[in-house]
Amino acid sequence: MFPKLFQKLIDHFTSLPSIGPRMAERLVLYLFKQDKQKIQQFAKDLYEFGSNLNYCEKCFHVAEKDLCEICADKKRDHSTICVVEDPLDVIAIEKTRNYRGVYHVLGGNLSVMNEDEIKKLKINELIARVKTEKFKEIILATNPTTDGETTALYLARVIKSPKVKITRIARGLPTGGDIEYADEITLGSSLDGRREV
Amino acid sequence: MFPKLFQKLIDHFTSLPSIGPRMAERLVLYLFKQDKQKIQQFAKDLYEFGSNLNYCEKCFHVAEKDLCEICADKKRDHSTICVVEDPLDVIAIEKTRNYRGVYHVLGGNLSVMNEDEIKKLKINELIARVKTEKFKEIILATNPTTDGETTALYLARVIKSPKVKITRIARGLPTGGDIEYADEITLGSSLDGRREV
Repeated sequence: MFPKLFQKLIDHFTSLPSIGPRMAERLVLYLFKQDKQKIQQFAKDLYEFGSNLNYCEKCFHVAEKDLCEICADKKRDHSTICVVEDPLDVIAIEKTRNYRGVYHVLGGNLSVMNEDEIKKLKINELIARVKTEKFKEIILATNPTTDGETTALYLARVIKSPKVKITRIARGLPTGGDIEYADEITLGSSLDGRREV
Repeated sequence: MFPKLFQKLIDHFTSLPSIGPRMAERLVLYLFKQDKQKIQQFAKDLYEFGSNLNYCEKCFHVAEKDLCEICADKKRDHSTICVVEDPLDVIAIEKTRNYRGVYHVLGGNLSVMNEDEIKKLKINELIARVKTEKFKEIILATNPTTDGETTALYLARVIKSPKVKITRIARGLPTGGDIEYADEITLGSSLDGRREV
């Protein structure tokens, strides 16, 4: 009942996560009401995105060239590496402006639920980097979830070496949090990880 | 911190309704993980959509040619016209398979909140069609909201003619609804609109 072009686009949007068919209809209708130029620009950018964006050869972050901007930046501290699950985690850490080292993006975690994904994780690539790049510190910044912890523990074991310091990001109360309402595990971690003031 | 292409696409998605920046990041990251071909196909379809899709010259529904499929269909009843707010309403009514007439898409309603939108409504075009196309019945199918009712009342006044029957879609309890939990206005409409069995 929709013209084919309209329906095709609804299908594309529906294939994205957390967009159902009804929401896709609304999005496509909204697009339809926009200027043609704006839609065409969206399409061009999407095409370029699909053609020119790659994984960084070194750290597997999103990259426009062979190396991502971070790996290509000589001013950064290439002796410290932060291992994360996802490119969005890189962005989140970059936003803190607290970190000047480089990254390694695993592409997921050792989730028990998804064996196919585990095979794609860039763990062997990390092991190879640890051997060749002589890091001083490896920060394990997988998510503080069960799967993320499992991944961190596993990585700590396989990349262990007397020359390198392996650290795990701290767990504790989030800033602005409330002790009264904190869950037991978080509060426990917060006590375990206490520091002298 | 994202490559420019990545950020551009996030901005495009964020400009869509009910997609915030965080959701846009997740969508773009999801896209990034897909096959290049799939993304390029999405982009091509979007470009075609932005270039070849128009408003139907007659009823202002979505159309690939000058006329939409419904207006171009000679088998349909061109003496009955159903006035709706949005192309999605056309689709919803088409899905019922209860209606074989044609449509007129206003492109919104007489919302008090949005004067700019009111100027764009295809009301004059509707009046012109009523004069030239000699309809037997005009069904006012604007939404059963305050703005939709206002629009229907206004339209009924301006297109009034002794030769044409003007009807309003029925209000009442939705199928599968519960009298006990119905709101008063709906239940009132349901009683007012009672029919002999």
